[in-house]
Amino acid sequence: MNRARDGAPSARHAAQRFREIRAVTRGLAAPLTAEDCAIQSMTEASPVKWHLGHTTWFFETFVLSRHDPQHAPFDSSFRVLFNSYYNAVGERHPRPQRGLLSRPALDHVLAYRDQVDKEVSDLLERDALAPELRALVELGMNHEQQHQELILTDLKHMLSCNPTRPAYQKTWPLTPISPEQRRWLAVAGGLREIGHDGEGFAFDNEQPRHKVWIEPFEIASLPVTHGELMDFIDDGGYRRPELWLYAGWDAAASRGWTGPMYWERRGSRWHTFTLHGMAPVERNTPACHLSFYEADAIARWAGARLPTEAEWECAAEGVPVEGNFLESGALHPLALREPALQDAPAQMFGDVWEWTRSDYSPYPHFRPAPGAVGEYNGKFMCNQYVLRGGSCASPASHIRPSYRNFFAADARWQFSGLRLARDA
Amino acid sequence: MNRARDGAPSARHAAQRFREIRAVTRGLAAPLTAEDCAIQSMTEASPVKWHLGHTTWFFETFVLSRHDPQHAPFDSSFRVLFNSYYNAVGERHPRPQRGLLSRPALDHVLAYRDQVDKEVSDLLERDALAPELRALVELGMNHEQQHQELILTDLKHMLSCNPTRPAYQKTWPLTPISPEQRRWLAVAGGLREIGHDGEGFAFDNEQPRHKVWIEPFEIASLPVTHGELMDFIDDGGYRRPELWLYAGWDAAASRGWTGPMYWERRGSRWHTFTLHGMAPVERNTPACHLSFYEADAIARWAGARLPTEAEWECAAEGVPVEGNFLESGALHPLALREPALQDAPAQMFGDVWEWTRSDYSPYPHFRPAPGAVGEYNGKFMCNQYVLRGGSCASPASHIRPSYRNFFAADARWQFSGLRLARDA
Amino acid sequence: MNRARDGAPSARHAAQRFREIRAVTRGLAAPLTAEDCAIQSMTEASPVKWHLGHTTWFFETFVLSRHDPQHAPFDSSFRVLFNSYYNAVGERHPRPQRGLLSRPALDHVLAYRDQVDKEVSDLLERDALAPELRALVELGMNHEQQHQELILTDLKHMLSCNPTRPAYQKTWPLTPISPEQRRWLAVAGGLREIGHDGEGFAFDNEQPRHKVWIEPFEIASLPVTHGELMDFIDDGGYRRPELWLYAGWDAAASRGWTGPMYWERRGSRWHTFTLHGMAPVERNTPACHLSFYEADAIARWAGARLPTEAEWECAAEGVPVEGNFLESGALHPLALREPALQDAPAQMFGDVWEWTRSDYSPYPHFRPAPGAVGEYNGKFMCNQYVLRGGSCASPASHIRPSYRNFFAADARWQFSGLRLARDA
Amino acid sequence: MNRARDGAPSARHAAQRFREIRAVTRGLAAPLTAEDCAIQSMTEASPVKWHLGHTTWFFETFVLSRHDPQHAPFDSSFRVLFNSYYNAVGERHPRPQRGLLSRPALDHVLAYRDQVDKEVSDLLERDALAPELRALVELGMNHEQQHQELILTDLKHMLSCNPTRPAYQKTWPLTPISPEQRRWLAVAGGLREIGHDGEGFAFDNEQPRHKVWIEPFEIASLPVTHGELMDFIDDGGYRRPELWLYAGWDAAASRGWTGPMYWERRGSRWHTFTLHGMAPVERNTPACHLSFYEADAIARWAGARLPTEAEWECAAEGVPVEGNFLESGALHPLALREPALQDAPAQMFGDVWEWTRSDYSPYPHFRPAPGAVGEYNGKFMCNQYVLRGGSCASPASHIRPSYRNFFAADARWQFSGLRLARDA
Repeated sequence: MNRARDGAPSARHAAQRFREIRAVTRGLAAPLTAEDCAIQSMTEASPVKWHLGHTTWFFETFVLSRHDPQHAPFDSSFRVLFNSYYNAVGERHPRPQRGLLSRPALDHVLAYRDQVDKEVSDLLERDALAPELRALVELGMNHEQQHQELILTDLKHMLSCNPTRPAYQKTWPLTPISPEQRRWLAVAGGLREIGHDGEGFAFDNEQPRHKVWIEPFEIASLPVTHGELMDFIDDGGYRRPELWLYAGWDAAASRGWTGPMYWERRGSRWHTFTLHGMAPVERNTPACHLSFYEADAIARWAGARLPTEAEWECAAEGVPVEGNFLESGALHPLALREPALQDAPAQMFGDVWEWTRSDYSPYPHFRPAPGAVGEYNGKFMCNQYVLRGGSCASPASHIRPSYRNFFAADARWQFSGLRLARDA
Repeated sequence: MNRARDGAPSARHAAQRFREIRAVTRGLAAPLTAEDCAIQSMTEASPVKWHLGHTTWFFETFVLSRHDPQHAPFDSSFRVLFNSYYNAVGERHPRPQRGLLSRPALDHVLAYRDQVDKEVSDLLERDALAPELRALVELGMNHEQQHQELILTDLKHMLSCNPTRPAYQKTWPLTPISPEQRRWLAVAGGLREIGHDGEGFAFDNEQPRHKVWIEPFEIASLPVTHGELMDFIDDGGYRRPELWLYAGWDAAASRGWTGPMYWERRGSRWHTFTLHGMAPVERNTPACHLSFYEADAIARWAGARLPTEAEWECAAEGVPVEGNFLESGALHPLALREPALQDAPAQMFGDVWEWTRSDYSPYPHFRPAPGAVGEYNGKFMCNQYVLRGGSCASPASHIRPSYRNFFAADARWQFSGLRLARDA
Repeated sequence: MNRARDGAPSARHAAQRFREIRAVTRGLAAPLTAEDCAIQSMTEASPVKWHLGHTTWFFETFVLSRHDPQHAPFDSSFRVLFNSYYNAVGERHPRPQRGLLSRPALDHVLAYRDQVDKEVSDLLERDALAPELRALVELGMNHEQQHQELILTDLKHMLSCNPTRPAYQKTWPLTPISPEQRRWLAVAGGLREIGHDGEGFAFDNEQPRHKVWIEPFEIASLPVTHGELMDFIDDGGYRRPELWLYAGWDAAASRGWTGPMYWERRGSRWHTFTLHGMAPVERNTPACHLSFYEADAIARWAGARLPTEAEWECAAEGVPVEGNFLESGALHPLALREPALQDAPAQMFGDVWEWTRSDYSPYPHFRPAPGAVGEYNGKFMCNQYVLRGGSCASPASHIRPSYRNFFAADARWQFSGLRLARDA
Repeated sequence: MNRARDGAPSARHAAQRFREIRAVTRGLAAPLTAEDCAIQSMTEASPVKWHLGHTTWFFETFVLSRHDPQHAPFDSSFRVLFNSYYNAVGERHPRPQRGLLSRPALDHVLAYRDQVDKEVSDLLERDALAPELRALVELGMNHEQQHQELILTDLKHMLSCNPTRPAYQKTWPLTPISPEQRRWLAVAGGLREIGHDGEGFAFDNEQPRHKVWIEPFEIASLPVTHGELMDFIDDGGYRRPELWLYAGWDAAASRGWTGPMYWERRGSRWHTFTLHGMAPVERNTPACHLSFYEADAIARWAGARLPTEAEWECAAEGVPVEGNFLESGALHPLALREPALQDAPAQMFGDVWEWTRSDYSPYPHFRPAPGAVGEYNGKFMCNQYVLRGGSCASPASHIRPSYRNFFAADARWQFSGLRLARDA
């Protein structure tokens, strides 16, 4: 949160930033029809309309109705329909049934957004919110950005289920490719610190900053590419149990995985479904739509391993948070566009989320935020693995070196890839 | 088709009837948004958009493309997307995934309807179709009418999944009630005939007309009412295994049935979801949304049994095909509106489909229609039970005494009820 | 029961017949270990130990404890453990958990049999039972015979799950083969009668005898053979949807059926698991371990159909109830051993149960037996299809022309095959 | 392994220790019938017979057949039947089907044990094994001890499924109770070391010993007791989502958990199934049969948390490995028998496994053992949580401070409980 850093940003600036972030979400839905926004293609994903409503519900529930207990709800049914998982807020519509809601209509949800945007914006302009509510607005904007990414990944999954494979955006991003050789970069061990340093906004799960002991190790200068993934496949990677975790082999066998999500064999070439429709797989782009299981198996096949999240964060120290993010409009991982620096890992940020070997668990002295928003992160700390660095669908301003994303080990519909590590 | 047989109906009349039936379908969708039309609420049901496309596909596939092999398909992807189950036509989109199709858009499907309607209508006006294609148009119109009913029942199920319980039509049908006492009517046994007599259109499954031996029996003058159903519930009907078939008890227990589909207890009264929203249950209306299992248990509780389909058809002999059909606009079973005749069963047609004790099996000398449309009926003759008489969602012109509807024993989302029978 | 009607059979004879039938069951278990008897290999099947206990429970519950309300139960826990599905008797151990019972030990169950056998036998010797209890003994003996067949088919399934494919009996039955050409035999139609005629014991579901109208038809002189089944397979029978009922095609596809149960391809030959271990499939033996779905598809492929149960019973009129039953010890269908008669169908009884086209439904004026045993048959009359004629695992004295066996359309672990019929 | 520590133990001593450990396993099965040993009550558990065979297969496969490639296998089918999960050894019988094997008979498996015991024992007596095979014998003995515990916990589950609740041992262990007040003990933080120190045998997953940074914390002097668990229940613990992890609440709700595994309410008192049959729950005994989810919720309810495995191991430093292990014969957690020391946690070893907050992941520089036994541990490092300290079913000589047990977060059939920790 820049407030903390900058001192006292003008209220106008806060309101403008709020409106900008909210507008990005709306922009993502702009090319879509009401039908596109209504459908839920799997339990783990939500309809775009639900994302639009839920992110708005967050501001209404945690900001507007607390600022003014007399606040008249836009639609009383929304309290239940758009609650995701906050038990403290009360009942909620079951997640697997989010796709059954033809009503409220998309237009009604967009009107809901307009009204809440106006009310929050007004309060911000007038600097009328108590500090804890301003903090919740900040949290809500970060929450909004998380859902911007989910809108794209959930939508991609939904479109991929249509045999006509419709495109979300028509133009295919140009990818000037300058193939790089992957190199190993040494990272010093010892007593290090990880976690958020207190400058700007961070989620509770990134805190507090704390000491960790790290053994010296090496990290790859680049993420694993689609070319390496094809080599893994050609080398029988999906048929060799010795490369896999037991649970991974089980998942791969029972679901018939023979390649990453969205791949289709057409003649002698692999194609993949993208937000631009079907496209041939490019060898030099970072591999994505891989589960933790596949990432782990690919690393073992390469004679390496996944980094822990502490290793990843140490390796990222000093690396600028730049890369192929949502704003580039590519919506697909791209090959490295300019020569990598000699001593720093490239593409640490953007392109693909990188699976780490670490399960998602509380940092020492972790304290969930007080109140209902304390349910935001802590209660998911079980059977999830941490991913780092953001992807081509993440808003750039949303990502930090300490940012912890997390998904179940079998999740594949995010832009998830990997970077190799090995013991020094 | 009686027109072919009766001599020479005017081509204009045929075209007009075609347009009228097609217009009814479109009218049913008129109050709905694109979102309403896109959602599939369970595997057994289809989105309204799919019904709109599939019924049109029927005419394109079986009439237009056969009349003119050069016929340019409206959209080549529709051949697969809108094929229901005709293996002879080729691939088909899996039924449980019909709700994943945000594309084609509703507008595109409506344009498809317009074009096909125009082409078929033109051919009919010009009397340009070969007799077997005219017969397929007739089949297609009857097929369309079946889907008109399914549009309503599938839509009702989808709307019922929405916690806001939205209404399809706002006005609740007036129900002037003149409660009748249920009486037993004797029906003579002996060597009788059932099946379609050859006058007018009938499906292959109603043919040929054939002899059956029937023991004398009695049939109820009225369907079982919601009042009797409440008595059954109050008498512990859903908790007494001795009243149920083994498979029925299993279904009721494992799914937690304590009343018919769509019922909710509000305070001391039962309410039910209707196409007009939630409404209190009226004692004098025919009971509906019952499975075969519940119908069978209610009959046993009443010291009676379900009629066989042969018994039902004999009891319906001479009864005019009149009643509360789709055209009344009630879209809900109504109480008897005028005194019943002394000697004839009332409400045999319309209001609710009546479960019979007969499984859906081929009549002696049954022959499926030749070609792909031979898949229409015969291949479903397994583990289904026959219902007779039509419902408040059936078009009046679609129903005949010989008409055989069929559903699995656990289906409850149709307007399905029962009429009692007993041995003489 | 013919004894009651025929006058006064000696009490000694009744007791002896009881002991003989009970001894057959025990003999079937004789070659088995306690471990063999304890295991349940699927929900539909029961452990042999359970069959041994349940058939004994039947006599204790319905005869001994009614004859003498002071009767001391052998083990009070058996009332629940060995109740199959009689709600009127009270609680029951869930069917899918019958294989979790290591206790009571097999020896304890055999001691239970000994005691109940002695008590019932004594009562019969002394002619001390009231007529309705004598009728229940008769019912119990027929019940026992049904379980004799189930012991063999359930055991066969369990042994087949063992990768070492152990044999129940070592010696393979000699099969002197005199291949016969299948012929069509005409059967006259008209007003016929089917159902039990009142001579000797019959289940309630075979009664009352009643009139049916039958169209003239033809029936095959022999059951479909394994040779014809191989031709069906070679002709792509399992890959051609047009041959199958919709539900059958679904079952075949989702379970990956490519041949009947128990078949394995070894090199260029089919082998099958038998109660004598693995054996090559013999072309001239009646095909078995087929579901209703497969039987129906094979008939369609052969340009014929399954007979209804009324047709089957008419065709069996006058045919002696002789054939390859349990007593032959073959425990596998055999080829016809002597030339068939010119005018009568061969192998109507024994070898394999023959699927009919008829669902299992109540005969006109059907009345379940009074009391708890009324749950014996009637409550299963839903989603089951009738099989006729008995098999190589049926006791000869158990089978009658009017005997109605029934199983779900997807059941394959019985010795179930088919005989073709066609319209005249 | 004392070999490493003592220098050169006599070969005779090695052989004797081998025979003793093997005899314990056999002793555990001694009170059981062949039926008891054959049944599998859930996928996660195995029949006792399978444990007896599999532990023997381990020695035959990894020792005998490698010592002498000409070694004649006892039964060639065992290679597949008793392989648990070693892909490098070849095919294996599917885990969920281990309970379908009535053959080999228990006697045959015991004869298998006899022969392998004799062969291995002879080789050990003659000191004839190469060092790497001696190491595999050591591994096999530790493997055997793991299965000793599983024999008891799997058996307990199987017996609990029997409505007669049979006892494995008749005598209920006396529990002289001296209730202790739970106290908080401070543990210093800083740069510590955990992992096996190289003295004696350890599994690969306990190695290598490595540095960790620990914040100062406090640990409870005693495990959570059944009394505290009852307080948790009375306080609505199973109905308050705010106490649970999201996945835990989901598991508890969907499976209807209202108390730990094996508990039954009888009147006003809780009873639990034990290896001695049903027994009232004692307040002062350590709580057990809890999932990770329940342990985590109980800790949160108590205003504390679970320790990490590093914290647990630091807290256990210097605590003697003594307690209520398998050898006590109690087979149930007992109340503390003598006053606890002032400064050391009591009951760290034995009684109940204690869930930690740590997922089961590789230590820095972890290397799986070479060859097939490398599949022993590493491939399970996903979605499992670590338990420490051993239980009343663990052999005393099997447990070390560095010992890492692991189970899925929803597993409850082990003797699993918890000990509270909190930040300093």
